[in-house]
Amino acid sequence: MKKDLEENLEFAPQFDGNGLIPAIAQDARTGQVLMVAYMNRQALNATIQSGYATYFSRTRKKLWKKGEESGHLQKVEQILVDCDQDCLVLKVSVDAGQCHVGYQSCFYRALSKNSDKKLEFIAEKVYDPEKTYKK
Amino acid sequence: MKKDLEENLEFAPQFDGNGLIPAIAQDARTGQVLMVAYMNRQALNATIQSGYATYFSRTRKKLWKKGEESGHLQKVEQILVDCDQDCLVLKVSVDAGQCHVGYQSCFYRALSKNSDKKLEFIAEKVYDPEKTYKK
Repeated sequence: MKKDLEENLEFAPQFDGNGLIPAIAQDARTGQVLMVAYMNRQALNATIQSGYATYFSRTRKKLWKKGEESGHLQKVEQILVDCDQDCLVLKVSVDAGQCHVGYQSCFYRALSKNSDKKLEFIAEKVYDPEKTYKK
Repeated sequence: MKKDLEENLEFAPQFDGNGLIPAIAQDARTGQVLMVAYMNRQALNATIQSGYATYFSRTRKKLWKKGEESGHLQKVEQILVDCDQDCLVLKVSVDAGQCHVGYQSCFYRALSKNSDKKLEFIAEKVYDPEKTYKK
């Protein structure tokens, strides 16, 4: 079974006990990791069918088409799956500002050298989320 | 609290109900996503202290220094954390062959265009795992 998952060409995503699989959105152009979210079967189907990344929001307990509110959609160029098929990478085409905090990527901080407690910013904000999310 | 996690410079990794946080290993040089694994607090501490990626194996229920058997270590150049601090990206320096199946990355297959079932290989094997893992 494990060997099959690894060597076969049948797409058999392994959803976890909560029916979810993690999906990494990676900028298809720059290779930057933008965000990590979760998909259930319905979100994955919607992503494949629409061509735009759709996740399952664990806090709101519902499907969430990335960018439906902010406009920062993710056009899916390719969907990769790992060896044991329990994680996805989405290669996406995006505009500026993928993180709701205002940065291009959700990964805008790094652990400082020689520290296990202190972070440092490694990016600048690319848009003002107050403006984008104000209705 | 959410705002604090997002804007502060205090590293406060949010382990899930099982005490785990997902960690994405990304090639620091090429940007390729190599693998995704999980860390508990102990694995994260070991990673920070040793400078080499150490995960928690969910199947074997123990710490797993990546490469301890295969020799394919991951030297950690930088640890990034996302906005809500529930996912890590490790920028790592690696040699050839990070996936136990024989590929450089665990993500060696992609969903074929216009299919929701069929995968295709997008990489070639870079080493023979039979040789590496045979004792």
